[in-house]
Amino acid sequence: MIPFSERPYIFINSAMSADGKLSTFERKQVKISGKADFDRVDTLRAGTDAIMVGIGTVLADNPSLTVKSEQRRLERTAAGKEENPIRVIVDSNARTPIDADIFKKGKGRKIIVVSESAQKEKTAALSKMPDTKIIVAGSDRVNLEEMAVLLKKEGINRLMVEGGATLNYGLISVGLVDELMIFVGNLIIGGKTAPTFADGDGFSEGQIRRLTLESAEKIEDGILLTWKMKSE
Amino acid sequence: MIPFSERPYIFINSAMSADGKLSTFERKQVKISGKADFDRVDTLRAGTDAIMVGIGTVLADNPSLTVKSEQRRLERTAAGKEENPIRVIVDSNARTPIDADIFKKGKGRKIIVVSESAQKEKTAALSKMPDTKIIVAGSDRVNLEEMAVLLKKEGINRLMVEGGATLNYGLISVGLVDELMIFVGNLIIGGKTAPTFADGDGFSEGQIRRLTLESAEKIEDGILLTWKMKSE
Repeated sequence: MIPFSERPYIFINSAMSADGKLSTFERKQVKISGKADFDRVDTLRAGTDAIMVGIGTVLADNPSLTVKSEQRRLERTAAGKEENPIRVIVDSNARTPIDADIFKKGKGRKIIVVSESAQKEKTAALSKMPDTKIIVAGSDRVNLEEMAVLLKKEGINRLMVEGGATLNYGLISVGLVDELMIFVGNLIIGGKTAPTFADGDGFSEGQIRRLTLESAEKIEDGILLTWKMKSE
Repeated sequence: MIPFSERPYIFINSAMSADGKLSTFERKQVKISGKADFDRVDTLRAGTDAIMVGIGTVLADNPSLTVKSEQRRLERTAAGKEENPIRVIVDSNARTPIDADIFKKGKGRKIIVVSESAQKEKTAALSKMPDTKIIVAGSDRVNLEEMAVLLKKEGINRLMVEGGATLNYGLISVGLVDELMIFVGNLIIGGKTAPTFADGDGFSEGQIRRLTLESAEKIEDGILLTWKMKSE
């Protein structure tokens, strides 16, 4: 485990259906939460140093990951920060499209974390995008622990993760997650192959991660559950 | 949709991890809830006419599905009922083992619901088990709507479903579920292939089922969410 002083505080914010799904089996996003929850998420974004997603989420949803409220962006710049937190993509094989919305929408730094096995041409192309830095961590796949230490050195003390299923699982499995905020929406999506809050290989009995329920708050038609990870 | 008057009131009771899983990817049951929740489930069982599971759950967990509290069993018999609610297994191909615990543990009627394509010898063997009735509904797989009508004719007005993932999804997808009680436990199980609250094919965008949150109650280290299905 990386000592807490050498990595950012990391929390995952996610919305899932009442049966634990992030999207349909076709990976199609569905409306899980409403306006009040979007606003809550925007506040969370404005209060962090960086926002991270996995490459799967970029390819499926093409999110911009910007702060939506102008007021909150102004507050950030008034405090001497950039309008938007640093946007970080975990992308072992440098597959982020150069026309992705994170490059097109909103100002601010971008970090693409790749592994040593990513094709040099792809990495080079991404490194030429404005305000974009490439970080290499790990040989075949991104080593999340190495990455966390390097992100801390970039000045990231508070990191918000917005999915998807594979990244959530990966971070939890190496003990890098401090807190989970899971909005449980009023719907059933179903599906053996639909992405869930945490996919990956899954834990065997002895590896199961335990949580502490910090709070449960009804928001519109769903409920926000906030969990802290128990230390191992 | 089957008119409500022609079928039982059907509710699902289930415990899942904070990421929506019923068990590990190896289908190994893990402790999701504690004593207080087991007691709540026992009260629910004692208050129903029948308890239903899918064949997958029988093969993986071999549950007895009996009322555990002697006091509750006595109350049932004092009220002129059998000690245990009728135990119903949805088992298209008659794969229920004749040494399953539902035959060995606890008194009371058992119903095995099979399809027409189940092997006659298997069905015949099961029909010889004490207090056991075979119901045939559907050609290749159990037709859940037909089944619901037939179960009502057996005097079942209140039916509790205890999983698993495939049966939950099947019942929801044909509009047979009135209420969901989902205990969300303080753990992450993870796994792309781990059973979730509702598996099956999954809904496409236009078929998503919507719910109404009736209540959220903290029990021990988790939270019990009670949802009503919205009518279509």
